[in-house]
Amino acid sequence: MNQCYGCNTCKSADQPLEGFIRSLPMETSHHRVEGQSTKCGFGLQGVCCRLCSNGPCRITPEAPRGICGASADTIVARNFLRAVASGSGCYIHIVENTALNLKKTAQAKGELKGIASLNHLADIFGIEEEDNYKKAEKVADAVLADLYKPEYVSAELIEKIAYAPRVARWKELGIMPGGAKAEVFKGVVKCSTNLNSDPVDMLTDCLKLGISTGVYGLTLTNLLNDVLLGQPELRMAPVGLRVIDPDYINIMITGHQHTIFVDLQERLISEEAKKKAQAAGARGFKLVGCTCVGQDLQLRGAHYTEVFDGHAGNNYTSEAILATGAIDAVLSEFNCTLPGIEPICDELKIKQICLDDVAKKANAELMQFDFAHREEQSDIIIDKIIESYKERRGTVPLHLMEDHGNDHTLTGVSEGSLKDFLGGKWTPLIELLAAGEIKGIAGVVGCSNLTAGGHDVLSVDLTKELIARDILVLTAGCSSGGIENCGLMTPEAAELAGPKLRAVCKKLGIPPVLNFGPCLAIGRLEIVATEIASELGVDLPKLPLVLSAAQWLEEQALADGCFGLALGLPLHLGLPPFVTGSKTAVQVLTEDMKELTGGQVIINDNAKESANILEQIILEKRQDLHI
Amino acid sequence: MNQCYGCNTCKSADQPLEGFIRSLPMETSHHRVEGQSTKCGFGLQGVCCRLCSNGPCRITPEAPRGICGASADTIVARNFLRAVASGSGCYIHIVENTALNLKKTAQAKGELKGIASLNHLADIFGIEEEDNYKKAEKVADAVLADLYKPEYVSAELIEKIAYAPRVARWKELGIMPGGAKAEVFKGVVKCSTNLNSDPVDMLTDCLKLGISTGVYGLTLTNLLNDVLLGQPELRMAPVGLRVIDPDYINIMITGHQHTIFVDLQERLISEEAKKKAQAAGARGFKLVGCTCVGQDLQLRGAHYTEVFDGHAGNNYTSEAILATGAIDAVLSEFNCTLPGIEPICDELKIKQICLDDVAKKANAELMQFDFAHREEQSDIIIDKIIESYKERRGTVPLHLMEDHGNDHTLTGVSEGSLKDFLGGKWTPLIELLAAGEIKGIAGVVGCSNLTAGGHDVLSVDLTKELIARDILVLTAGCSSGGIENCGLMTPEAAELAGPKLRAVCKKLGIPPVLNFGPCLAIGRLEIVATEIASELGVDLPKLPLVLSAAQWLEEQALADGCFGLALGLPLHLGLPPFVTGSKTAVQVLTEDMKELTGGQVIINDNAKESANILEQIILEKRQDLHI
Repeated sequence: MNQCYGCNTCKSADQPLEGFIRSLPMETSHHRVEGQSTKCGFGLQGVCCRLCSNGPCRITPEAPRGICGASADTIVARNFLRAVASGSGCYIHIVENTALNLKKTAQAKGELKGIASLNHLADIFGIEEEDNYKKAEKVADAVLADLYKPEYVSAELIEKIAYAPRVARWKELGIMPGGAKAEVFKGVVKCSTNLNSDPVDMLTDCLKLGISTGVYGLTLTNLLNDVLLGQPELRMAPVGLRVIDPDYINIMITGHQHTIFVDLQERLISEEAKKKAQAAGARGFKLVGCTCVGQDLQLRGAHYTEVFDGHAGNNYTSEAILATGAIDAVLSEFNCTLPGIEPICDELKIKQICLDDVAKKANAELMQFDFAHREEQSDIIIDKIIESYKERRGTVPLHLMEDHGNDHTLTGVSEGSLKDFLGGKWTPLIELLAAGEIKGIAGVVGCSNLTAGGHDVLSVDLTKELIARDILVLTAGCSSGGIENCGLMTPEAAELAGPKLRAVCKKLGIPPVLNFGPCLAIGRLEIVATEIASELGVDLPKLPLVLSAAQWLEEQALADGCFGLALGLPLHLGLPPFVTGSKTAVQVLTEDMKELTGGQVIINDNAKESANILEQIILEKRQDLHI
Repeated sequence: MNQCYGCNTCKSADQPLEGFIRSLPMETSHHRVEGQSTKCGFGLQGVCCRLCSNGPCRITPEAPRGICGASADTIVARNFLRAVASGSGCYIHIVENTALNLKKTAQAKGELKGIASLNHLADIFGIEEEDNYKKAEKVADAVLADLYKPEYVSAELIEKIAYAPRVARWKELGIMPGGAKAEVFKGVVKCSTNLNSDPVDMLTDCLKLGISTGVYGLTLTNLLNDVLLGQPELRMAPVGLRVIDPDYINIMITGHQHTIFVDLQERLISEEAKKKAQAAGARGFKLVGCTCVGQDLQLRGAHYTEVFDGHAGNNYTSEAILATGAIDAVLSEFNCTLPGIEPICDELKIKQICLDDVAKKANAELMQFDFAHREEQSDIIIDKIIESYKERRGTVPLHLMEDHGNDHTLTGVSEGSLKDFLGGKWTPLIELLAAGEIKGIAGVVGCSNLTAGGHDVLSVDLTKELIARDILVLTAGCSSGGIENCGLMTPEAAELAGPKLRAVCKKLGIPPVLNFGPCLAIGRLEIVATEIASELGVDLPKLPLVLSAAQWLEEQALADGCFGLALGLPLHLGLPPFVTGSKTAVQVLTEDMKELTGGQVIINDNAKESANILEQIILEKRQDLHI
């Protein structure tokens, strides 16, 4: 390999990856951490306002208000609401496209791989219909109609989907959302220049946005995906850079909208495409998973064994995946597609095609996914990627990492596959909890970032600490990608668990960390929690269940977090959101929330301390449940 | 008066106001300018990103990318798109509520004061209906249906309202908007963490948002308001702090949603309310105008002579209006309601009621306007304000400024009233333009800020420079409030105009600056321009017409500005938006835009220089028109 670009990369929990990145001849995000290490204190605290031309204004002891009179509380709450509303918007965009793709597939009488999921959704929605295509169309229409309601019209599906005791509490608090898109719209307006200045009002709206994010974005997206793409099935799979096979034409996929790939997935393994690939000198095409759409494909991998090579890594592994030289194209359709991949793609002649203009990359070709022309688009994409392959292979050096990751990570975990594994009911899990064989459950969810100790450092360390305390860990999001590449989702990881959890894992042949897949699957965790709570006859905050978005990164993660708070769950974060400049915001999020919803935010960047805090909460919840 | 709070207030074009504010015993925005005078260079240039927990990242020569790899271009464009989308959202919120209030009024068979406007709208929309109430409902429904279309469904009304040559150009550029709310939603999503990174794509979207802002927010809001509230009629009116009559119970109104006040306006002058006021020791109730809703009331003042005292001042005059001590309540329903009024209201025991939760003030009572309960709400509001009056009057000192402003400002100018004044056609104005008696037209629009030379300093100075060059000035927005308080809308101001324009003004008995009212009325200026262009058979960029948002302040102003650019008009700004850190953004806005739409952004904070630049552009346009 050429001389390395620079050795001051950030740490990674994934030591081989850290070494690989440090040796690379090109700049990655991991290299840029150092140059951006001097942080603006105003920005970190959220007390910088740039909503008007009088600004930017910054709050200091000497200048406790902006020119307009906005206090630190107002400025922080406006900034936070805007981030949450934007993050919610991202998820609502995803569920809208997912529902549209399901609807159009049903209209075109395309394949519906998950009829059980379709029937389940129809049951929940109260749709009676014999024909599966018509049923799917009605299900999709119900979602779309709800999304487009005005903010002042109650959403219909929330009461049908969310847990009844939660809905009751949300109604008491006056935080039942209207139409999800209009809620995002209103949230954004509310925090514009010289509009709302009431921090409590704005923070309450964040909960409302959390609910619609959770119900539509995090719950319904998965269930709609299940109908179209097939239900997850448990299986062992390889993960990490090892999944990249240089003998194939490799396409890295990034984003969150798996339904956009339906046609392409089939077409890539058609005889015609294979012949084209072979004519170009490759054995065929393979999709290489990255970010959440990769996790979703991994989750449903049982249905896509031929086209899918495996999940290579999370958002901050994407540059390394490209740097192997064996990726010939990137197909992206949403975040978390880092701008940092752009110069690398240029340098390594990797074709970039964006399938949704919301995520158009600066130097990429845009081919807006169009269901009506999906087949034609797939053909064009295949031809373009073959061109890329022919042009670059041989001229661009390969730096493979064939031993990175592992080859037996448990995947395909969902509320359905897990329950099936347990014999079709949650009783075994509940009994293990009641007996203390499993002390509690922690969802280690959300993104990967580079600043909470380094790449996946806190997520992985915290996960280890939690399982060592006999706490079962469930993951969803880019956190999954890091944790799986570090081996914690292999059955052997049971050795790292505390004695009780270890025994459970060995008996069942499972790892102590179960991967539900993309961040969207946080909604699946909620279904598991709700079904357990329902069986116990308690509300969610009573469960020995905690959440950690240890290495949250994006605005979407803040919207997810607000869902967790609305559910009444303790939510650990390694880094605070940009709210610490407001006493009111901190008080509401970390203390008052307990009274409001039962939730609370816990900020701690130390894995051991965080695990101790979360364990303590679990022990208190167990005590309250008399177990 | 007590000792002044501090003498380091910013300058104001309104010298008496500056003196008044300097003498006040409480802090205002004008006092806070100094304490916030050290500005963050990263924020000013737009190269600070706080979209994720790795941040905030700041672009420097040594660190040309954020950790994720985002360049200055990407960061600037994301920040700018978010501001424009949010500003657009504000206007769309306003037009939505306006349409809803018209619809509900029609359903309740309430008074429709502007039947000519109703018929005009029905004609444009192609609605045939005999019954006025049904007609109004259909008009409102057409607007609401359009607003709620998805982003991927073409809006219907834009082609019916906008100028055909412009629509043709917008189609060529691919910037015809879909549903206006969905466009805002999409804009916000697009600039979230790790989504779009293409600065040109994002800046193009700003134009799209500008079009929907302009057509719905700036054009239709006025026309819908005309139906419900009555068409503007030319008249002379008093302006400034002098309008406050301490013998009345005075209610300062702020915001942008005039239709929310329909019932209250009537009820305040009912015998019942008057008796209540008299029992409390006052002569009755008066509304005191502030910000744009005050401008709108002033514009339609012919219909509200009894209840409306006059327009006292713009956004940054609001604290001074309250400081007179003679305001007993603030009713606010949107921006530009400064947080700075909150401590003053507390100190002076002024009752604050917010009528729309998007603009809930921290220490105010929220009474969400509810059309169905409008009468009951009006009664409650009246009683609460009487309580406030009784509690505070006598205990709070008065500091009136009875000679502030003037008593003969021309108001009531609209596309309709001006055309009527000219004899029902634009020919007289076109002939004056063609003959060079009027060199050109400048719209001095938008907000008031405190940093472009001080309060209204650049707006007023630029206006003086423009009229001295025989350029007729039309205003809309908080700029109007400053310019009118400085006397430029009195017939005597003709003396400040150049010899040709002066002669025209004297002949017609009009001032050289015509006030179209609120910022919403930027859409009225566009109607005037379009009708003139249509009569001349040319596209808008051909007209000797320029725009200046000299003292733009808010995100809304940026959305307005994008409308101006989409119209193909030169747009002067005194202060740059936070985009100067991106060469691409600056290039697109100031240069490439000329090719795209015909528009361009001009940044200059010097009144003389700015006037010279704008005059030069007008002269070039005249030459191209061979006049």
